[in-house]
Amino acid sequence: MNKPALLIIDMQNDFVREGAPMQMPGAEQIIANVRAVLEMFRHYDHPVFHVVRIHRSDGSDVEIFRHEIFKKVPFTVEGTSGSGIIDELMPTEREYIIRKNRMSAFMNTDLDLLLRSLGIDTVFVTGIQTPNCIRTTVFDAAAFGYHTVLVEDAVAARDASVHQANLHDMANIGTVIVQKDAVCDLISS
Amino acid sequence: MNKPALLIIDMQNDFVREGAPMQMPGAEQIIANVRAVLEMFRHYDHPVFHVVRIHRSDGSDVEIFRHEIFKKVPFTVEGTSGSGIIDELMPTEREYIIRKNRMSAFMNTDLDLLLRSLGIDTVFVTGIQTPNCIRTTVFDAAAFGYHTVLVEDAVAARDASVHQANLHDMANIGTVIVQKDAVCDLISS
Repeated sequence: MNKPALLIIDMQNDFVREGAPMQMPGAEQIIANVRAVLEMFRHYDHPVFHVVRIHRSDGSDVEIFRHEIFKKVPFTVEGTSGSGIIDELMPTEREYIIRKNRMSAFMNTDLDLLLRSLGIDTVFVTGIQTPNCIRTTVFDAAAFGYHTVLVEDAVAARDASVHQANLHDMANIGTVIVQKDAVCDLISS
Repeated sequence: MNKPALLIIDMQNDFVREGAPMQMPGAEQIIANVRAVLEMFRHYDHPVFHVVRIHRSDGSDVEIFRHEIFKKVPFTVEGTSGSGIIDELMPTEREYIIRKNRMSAFMNTDLDLLLRSLGIDTVFVTGIQTPNCIRTTVFDAAAFGYHTVLVEDAVAARDASVHQANLHDMANIGTVIVQKDAVCDLISS
Protein backbone atom coordinates (compact mmCIF):
# COMPACT_ATOMS: atom_id res chain seq x y z
CA MET A 1 0.00 0.00 0.00
CA ASN A 2 1.27 3.42 -0.90
CA LYS A 3 -1.20 6.09 0.00
CA PRO A 4 -3.45 5.48 2.98
CA ALA A 5 -6.19 7.67 4.40
CA LEU A 6 -8.05 7.36 7.68
CA LEU A 7 -11.83 7.42 8.00
CA ILE A 8 -13.32 8.09 11.44
CA ILE A 9 -17.03 7.47 11.31
CA ASP A 10 -19.87 8.88 13.44
CA MET A 11 -17.83 9.59 16.59
CA GLN A 12 -20.30 12.31 17.57
CA ASN A 13 -21.64 13.31 20.96
CA ASP A 14 -25.16 11.97 20.34
CA PHE A 15 -23.81 8.50 19.53
CA VAL A 16 -20.94 8.28 21.99
CA ARG A 17 -21.64 10.18 25.20
CA GLU A 18 -23.10 8.53 28.29
CA GLY A 19 -26.78 9.44 28.44
CA ALA A 20 -26.92 10.76 24.89
CA PRO A 21 -30.19 10.05 23.06
CA MET A 22 -28.66 7.49 20.71
CA GLN A 23 -25.68 6.40 22.75
CA MET A 24 -24.15 3.20 21.43
CA PRO A 25 -22.84 0.88 24.13
CA GLY A 26 -19.14 0.30 23.45
CA ALA A 27 -18.55 3.57 21.66
CA GLU A 28 -16.84 5.25 24.60
CA GLN A 29 -14.51 2.29 25.03
CA ILE A 30 -12.93 2.75 21.61
CA ILE A 31 -12.20 6.48 21.90
CA ALA A 32 -8.62 5.94 23.08
CA ASN A 33 -7.87 3.51 20.27
CA VAL A 34 -9.37 5.72 17.57
CA ARG A 35 -7.37 8.58 19.02
CA ALA A 36 -4.17 6.49 18.87
CA VAL A 37 -4.77 5.69 15.18
CA LEU A 38 -5.57 9.34 14.50
CA GLU A 39 -2.25 10.38 16.08
CA MET A 40 -0.36 7.94 13.86
CA PHE A 41 -1.96 9.37 10.72
CA ARG A 42 -1.17 12.89 11.92
CA HIS A 43 2.41 11.89 12.66
CA TYR A 44 2.95 10.55 9.13
CA ASP A 45 0.93 13.35 7.58
CA HIS A 46 -1.59 11.09 5.86
CA PRO A 47 -5.07 12.46 5.11
CA VAL A 48 -7.76 12.12 7.76
CA PHE A 49 -11.50 12.19 7.04
CA HIS A 50 -13.99 12.81 9.85
CA VAL A 51 -17.28 11.42 8.60
CA VAL A 52 -20.33 12.68 10.47
CA ARG A 53 -24.05 12.09 10.27
CA ILE A 54 -25.95 15.38 10.16
CA HIS A 55 -29.75 15.68 9.86
CA ARG A 56 -32.14 18.51 9.19
CA SER A 57 -34.25 19.29 12.25
CA ASP A 58 -37.48 18.26 10.53
CA GLY A 59 -36.07 14.78 9.90
CA SER A 60 -36.80 14.90 6.18
CA ASP A 61 -33.39 13.42 5.39
CA VAL A 62 -33.59 10.54 7.90
CA GLU A 63 -33.89 6.95 6.59
CA ILE A 64 -37.49 5.73 6.53
CA PHE A 65 -36.77 2.96 9.02
CA ARG A 66 -35.64 5.61 11.54
CA HIS A 67 -38.47 8.12 11.11
CA GLU A 68 -40.26 6.96 14.24
CA ILE A 69 -37.23 7.01 16.52
CA PHE A 70 -36.12 10.41 15.16
CA LYS A 71 -39.57 11.83 15.84
CA LYS A 72 -39.31 10.74 19.47
CA VAL A 73 -35.62 11.53 19.97
CA PRO A 74 -34.02 13.73 17.30
CA PHE A 75 -30.31 12.97 16.90
CA THR A 76 -27.28 14.67 15.31
CA VAL A 77 -29.34 17.63 14.18
CA GLU A 78 -27.41 20.33 12.34
CA GLY A 79 -26.12 23.02 14.66
CA THR A 80 -26.71 21.14 17.92
CA SER A 81 -23.87 20.18 20.26
CA GLY A 82 -25.03 16.57 19.98
CA SER A 83 -24.08 16.56 16.32
CA GLY A 84 -20.53 17.67 17.14
CA ILE A 85 -17.49 15.42 16.96
CA ILE A 86 -16.37 14.38 20.45
CA ASP A 87 -13.64 16.57 21.96
CA GLU A 88 -11.04 13.79 22.03
CA LEU A 89 -11.15 13.48 18.24
CA MET A 90 -11.62 17.14 17.32
CA PRO A 91 -10.45 17.69 13.71
CA THR A 92 -7.60 20.01 12.92
CA GLU A 93 -8.04 22.64 10.25
CA ARG A 94 -6.23 20.51 7.68
CA GLU A 95 -8.45 17.48 8.13
CA TYR A 96 -11.52 16.78 6.06
CA ILE A 97 -15.11 16.74 7.27
CA ILE A 98 -17.57 14.62 5.29
CA ARG A 99 -21.25 15.15 6.11
CA LYS A 100 -23.60 12.30 5.34
CA ASN A 101 -27.19 11.36 6.10
CA ARG A 102 -26.97 7.69 5.21
CA MET A 103 -24.86 4.82 6.53
CA SER A 104 -22.18 4.70 3.86
CA ALA A 105 -19.66 7.53 3.90
CA PHE A 106 -19.73 7.34 0.09
CA MET A 107 -23.45 7.83 -0.48
CA ASN A 108 -24.23 11.32 -1.79
CA THR A 109 -20.91 12.70 -0.56
CA ASP A 110 -17.69 13.79 -2.25
CA LEU A 111 -15.55 11.26 -0.36
CA ASP A 112 -14.67 9.22 -3.46
CA LEU A 113 -13.82 12.38 -5.39
CA LEU A 114 -11.50 13.60 -2.64
CA LEU A 115 -9.80 10.22 -2.18
CA ARG A 116 -9.15 9.95 -5.93
CA SER A 117 -7.94 13.51 -6.14
CA LEU A 118 -5.45 12.83 -3.36
CA GLY A 119 -4.26 9.62 -5.00
CA ILE A 120 -5.34 7.49 -2.05
CA ASP A 121 -5.36 3.73 -2.70
CA THR A 122 -6.12 2.37 0.79
CA VAL A 123 -8.65 3.41 3.41
CA PHE A 124 -8.37 2.60 7.11
CA VAL A 125 -11.78 2.49 8.76
CA THR A 126 -12.58 3.29 12.39
CA GLY A 127 -15.65 4.39 14.38
CA ILE A 128 -19.19 3.08 14.83
CA GLN A 129 -20.99 0.88 14.31
CA THR A 130 -19.72 -2.32 12.71
CA PRO A 131 -22.82 -3.74 10.92
CA ASN A 132 -24.12 -0.44 9.59
CA CYS A 133 -22.00 2.64 8.86
CA ILE A 134 -18.70 0.78 9.12
CA ARG A 135 -19.65 -2.14 6.91
CA THR A 136 -21.50 -0.20 4.23
CA THR A 137 -18.52 2.16 4.00
CA VAL A 138 -16.07 -0.76 3.75
CA PHE A 139 -18.10 -2.49 1.04
CA ASP A 140 -18.51 0.74 -0.94
CA ALA A 141 -14.80 1.50 -0.62
CA ALA A 142 -13.99 -1.95 -1.99
CA ALA A 143 -16.51 -1.47 -4.80
CA PHE A 144 -14.89 1.85 -5.71
CA GLY A 145 -11.51 0.14 -5.98
CA TYR A 146 -9.81 0.97 -2.68
CA HIS A 147 -7.95 -1.50 -0.53
CA THR A 148 -9.67 -1.62 2.83
CA VAL A 149 -8.23 -2.02 6.29
CA LEU A 150 -10.46 -2.35 9.32
CA VAL A 151 -8.93 -1.44 12.67
CA GLU A 152 -10.77 -3.97 14.77
CA ASP A 153 -10.17 -2.46 18.20
CA ALA A 154 -11.16 0.98 16.91
CA VAL A 155 -14.64 0.00 15.76
CA ALA A 156 -17.58 -1.10 17.87
CA ALA A 157 -21.06 -2.51 17.70
CA ARG A 158 -23.96 -2.81 20.09
CA ASP A 159 -23.67 -6.59 20.01
CA ALA A 160 -20.45 -8.65 20.14
CA SER A 161 -21.65 -11.55 18.00
CA VAL A 162 -22.93 -9.13 15.34
CA HIS A 163 -19.52 -7.44 15.44
CA GLN A 164 -17.72 -10.76 14.88
CA ALA A 165 -20.05 -11.93 12.12
CA ASN A 166 -19.47 -8.69 10.25
CA LEU A 167 -15.69 -8.89 10.59
CA HIS A 168 -15.92 -12.34 9.03
CA ASP A 169 -17.86 -11.07 6.02
CA MET A 170 -15.52 -8.12 5.52
CA ALA A 171 -12.46 -10.37 5.68
CA ASN A 172 -14.13 -12.54 3.04
CA ILE A 173 -14.12 -9.68 0.55
CA GLY A 174 -10.45 -8.99 1.16
CA THR A 175 -10.61 -6.44 3.96
CA VAL A 176 -7.46 -6.61 6.05
CA ILE A 177 -8.41 -6.80 9.74
CA VAL A 178 -5.78 -5.39 12.08
CA GLN A 179 -5.40 -4.15 15.63
CA LYS A 180 -4.43 -0.53 16.27
CA ASP A 181 -0.88 -1.50 17.22
CA ALA A 182 -0.28 -2.85 13.72
CA VAL A 183 -1.30 0.37 11.99
CA CYS A 184 1.98 2.20 12.47
CA ASP A 185 3.99 -0.32 10.46
CA LEU A 186 1.41 -0.29 7.67
CA ILE A 187 1.40 3.47 7.15
CA SER A 188 5.04 4.36 7.83
CA SER A 189 6.55 2.71 4.77
CA MET B 1 -47.18 -1.48 0.99
CA ASN B 2 -48.69 -0.40 -2.26
CA LYS B 3 -46.32 -0.94 -5.15
CA PRO B 4 -43.91 -3.85 -4.90
CA ALA B 5 -41.22 -4.93 -7.33
CA LEU B 6 -39.19 -8.14 -7.38
CA LEU B 7 -35.40 -8.23 -7.65
CA ILE B 8 -33.78 -11.53 -8.66
CA ILE B 9 -30.04 -11.24 -8.21
CA ASP B 10 -27.19 -13.09 -9.93
CA MET B 11 -29.09 -16.30 -10.78
CA GLN B 12 -26.72 -16.92 -13.69
CA ASN B 13 -25.24 -20.15 -15.01
CA ASP B 14 -21.69 -19.43 -13.79
CA PHE B 15 -22.91 -18.96 -10.21
CA VAL B 16 -25.65 -21.59 -10.05
CA ARG B 17 -24.88 -24.61 -12.22
CA GLU B 18 -23.18 -27.74 -10.89
CA GLY B 19 -19.57 -27.63 -11.99
CA ALA B 20 -19.66 -23.96 -13.02
CA PRO B 21 -16.45 -22.03 -12.32
CA MET B 22 -17.96 -19.94 -9.53
CA GLN B 23 -20.78 -22.23 -8.46
CA MET B 24 -22.20 -21.25 -5.11
CA PRO B 25 -23.25 -24.20 -2.95
CA GLY B 26 -26.93 -23.76 -2.12
CA ALA B 27 -27.79 -21.75 -5.21
CA GLU B 28 -29.43 -24.67 -7.05
CA GLN B 29 -31.59 -25.44 -4.02
CA ILE B 30 -33.37 -22.10 -4.12
CA ILE B 31 -34.27 -22.12 -7.82
CA ALA B 32 -37.75 -23.54 -7.22
CA ASN B 33 -38.50 -20.97 -4.52
CA VAL B 34 -37.26 -18.03 -6.59
CA ARG B 35 -39.34 -19.37 -9.45
CA ALA B 36 -42.42 -19.55 -7.20
CA VAL B 37 -41.97 -15.91 -6.15
CA LEU B 38 -41.42 -14.91 -9.77
CA GLU B 39 -44.68 -16.58 -10.77
CA MET B 40 -46.54 -14.66 -8.06
CA PHE B 41 -45.20 -11.34 -9.32
CA ARG B 42 -46.12 -12.31 -12.87
CA HIS B 43 -49.59 -13.31 -11.76
CA TYR B 44 -50.23 -9.93 -10.12
CA ASP B 45 -48.45 -8.07 -12.89
CA HIS B 46 -45.90 -6.37 -10.62
CA PRO B 47 -42.54 -5.33 -12.10
CA VAL B 48 -39.71 -7.86 -12.10
CA PHE B 49 -36.02 -6.94 -12.29
CA HIS B 50 -33.44 -9.55 -13.26
CA VAL B 51 -30.15 -8.23 -11.92
CA VAL B 52 -27.07 -9.81 -13.50
CA ARG B 53 -23.34 -9.46 -13.06
CA ILE B 54 -21.61 -8.99 -16.42
CA HIS B 55 -17.86 -8.47 -16.89
CA ARG B 56 -15.64 -7.45 -19.77
CA SER B 57 -13.42 -10.33 -20.87
CA ASP B 58 -10.25 -8.51 -19.86
CA GLY B 59 -11.50 -8.22 -16.29
CA SER B 60 -10.96 -4.46 -16.16
CA ASP B 61 -14.33 -3.99 -14.46
CA VAL B 62 -13.86 -6.68 -11.80
CA GLU B 63 -13.43 -5.64 -8.14
CA ILE B 64 -9.78 -5.48 -7.09
CA PHE B 65 -10.22 -8.20 -4.50
CA ARG B 66 -11.37 -10.57 -7.27
CA HIS B 67 -8.71 -9.79 -9.87
CA GLU B 68 -6.70 -12.91 -9.05
CA ILE B 69 -9.61 -15.32 -9.13
CA PHE B 70 -10.95 -13.79 -12.35
CA LYS B 71 -7.55 -14.18 -14.00
CA LYS B 72 -7.58 -17.88 -13.17
CA VAL B 73 -11.28 -18.50 -13.83
CA PRO B 74 -13.12 -15.77 -15.72
CA PHE B 75 -16.80 -15.64 -14.77
CA THR B 76 -19.98 -14.10 -16.19
CA VAL B 77 -18.15 -12.65 -19.16
CA GLU B 78 -20.31 -10.71 -21.60
CA GLY B 79 -21.61 -12.89 -24.40
CA THR B 80 -20.78 -16.24 -22.80
CA SER B 81 -23.43 -18.80 -21.90
CA GLY B 82 -22.08 -18.73 -18.35
CA SER B 83 -23.25 -15.15 -18.00
CA GLY B 84 -26.79 -16.08 -19.00
CA ILE B 85 -29.72 -16.24 -16.61
CA ILE B 86 -30.60 -19.85 -15.79
CA ASP B 87 -33.36 -21.34 -17.96
CA GLU B 88 -35.79 -21.76 -15.06
CA LEU B 89 -35.87 -18.01 -14.45
CA MET B 90 -35.64 -16.78 -18.04
CA PRO B 91 -37.04 -13.22 -18.25
CA THR B 92 -40.05 -12.41 -20.36
CA GLU B 93 -39.87 -9.52 -22.80
CA ARG B 94 -41.70 -7.23 -20.37
CA GLU B 95 -39.30 -7.79 -17.49
CA TYR B 96 -36.30 -5.60 -16.79
CA ILE B 97 -32.64 -6.61 -17.02
CA ILE B 98 -30.18 -4.67 -14.88
CA ARG B 99 -26.49 -5.25 -15.65
CA LYS B 100 -24.03 -4.56 -12.87
CA ASN B 101 -20.36 -5.20 -12.15
CA ARG B 102 -20.43 -4.60 -8.43
CA MET B 103 -22.33 -6.24 -5.57
CA SER B 104 -25.13 -3.76 -5.10
CA ALA B 105 -27.80 -3.72 -7.80
CA PHE B 106 -27.91 0.05 -7.31
CA MET B 107 -24.25 0.87 -7.93
CA ASN B 108 -23.73 2.49 -11.32
CA THR B 109 -27.05 1.19 -12.64
CA ASP B 110 -30.40 2.80 -13.44
CA LEU B 111 -32.31 0.60 -10.97
CA ASP B 112 -33.23 3.47 -8.64
CA LEU B 113 -34.35 5.59 -11.59
CA LEU B 114 -36.58 2.81 -12.92
CA LEU B 115 -38.08 2.00 -9.52
CA ARG B 116 -38.90 5.68 -8.90
CA SER B 117 -40.31 6.10 -12.38
CA LEU B 118 -42.61 3.14 -11.81
CA GLY B 119 -43.71 4.46 -8.42
CA ILE B 120 -42.37 1.41 -6.58
CA ASP B 121 -42.19 1.77 -2.80
CA THR B 122 -41.18 -1.74 -1.76
CA VAL B 123 -38.59 -4.15 -3.13
CA PHE B 124 -38.64 -7.91 -2.60
CA VAL B 125 -35.16 -9.38 -2.80
CA THR B 126 -34.21 -12.89 -3.92
CA GLY B 127 -31.11 -14.62 -5.33
CA ILE B 128 -27.49 -14.98 -4.21
CA GLN B 129 -25.59 -14.52 -2.06
CA THR B 130 -26.77 -13.25 1.31
CA PRO B 131 -23.70 -11.40 2.71
CA ASN B 132 -22.64 -9.73 -0.54
CA CYS B 133 -24.95 -8.90 -3.44
CA ILE B 134 -28.13 -9.49 -1.45
CA ARG B 135 -27.15 -7.46 1.59
CA THR B 136 -25.54 -4.54 -0.24
CA THR B 137 -28.65 -4.30 -2.40
CA VAL B 138 -30.95 -4.40 0.64
CA PHE B 139 -28.96 -1.72 2.49
CA ASP B 140 -28.82 0.52 -0.59
CA ALA B 141 -32.55 0.04 -1.20
CA ALA B 142 -33.23 1.11 2.39
CA ALA B 143 -30.89 4.09 2.01
CA PHE B 144 -32.73 5.15 -1.15
CA GLY B 145 -36.01 5.10 0.76
CA TYR B 146 -37.61 1.80 -0.26
CA HIS B 147 -39.22 -0.63 2.12
CA THR B 148 -37.33 -3.90 1.88
CA VAL B 149 -38.58 -7.47 2.08
CA LEU B 150 -36.18 -10.39 2.04
CA VAL B 151 -37.59 -13.73 0.96
CA GLU B 152 -35.50 -15.91 3.21
CA ASP B 153 -36.00 -19.23 1.47
CA ALA B 154 -35.28 -17.64 -1.89
CA VAL B 155 -31.81 -16.37 -1.01
CA ALA B 156 -28.71 -18.41 -0.21
CA ALA B 157 -25.17 -18.15 1.05
CA ARG B 158 -22.15 -20.41 1.01
CA ASP B 159 -22.25 -20.62 4.80
CA ALA B 160 -25.34 -21.10 7.00
CA SER B 161 -24.09 -19.09 9.99
CA VAL B 162 -23.09 -16.21 7.72
CA HIS B 163 -26.57 -16.36 6.20
CA GLN B 164 -28.22 -16.16 9.64
CA ALA B 165 -25.97 -13.36 10.92
CA ASN B 166 -26.81 -11.28 7.86
CA LEU B 167 -30.54 -11.86 8.22
CA HIS B 168 -30.21 -10.56 11.77
CA ASP B 169 -28.50 -7.34 10.64
CA MET B 170 -31.02 -6.76 7.86
CA ALA B 171 -33.95 -7.26 10.24
CA ASN B 172 -32.30 -4.70 12.52
CA ILE B 173 -32.58 -2.00 9.87
CA GLY B 174 -36.24 -2.76 9.30
CA THR B 175 -36.08 -5.35 6.55
CA VAL B 176 -39.11 -7.62 6.70
CA ILE B 177 -37.97 -11.24 6.56
CA VAL B 178 -40.56 -13.61 5.09
CA GLN B 179 -40.81 -17.08 3.59
CA LYS B 180 -41.93 -17.47 -0.01
CA ASP B 181 -45.38 -18.71 1.05
CA ALA B 182 -46.07 -15.35 2.70
CA VAL B 183 -45.31 -13.33 -0.43
CA CYS B 184 -48.67 -13.84 -2.12
CA ASP B 185 -50.63 -12.15 0.67
CA LEU B 186 -48.20 -9.24 0.71
CA ILE B 187 -48.42 -8.42 -2.99
CA SER B 188 -52.04 -9.23 -3.75
CA SER B 189 -53.61 -6.40 -1.77
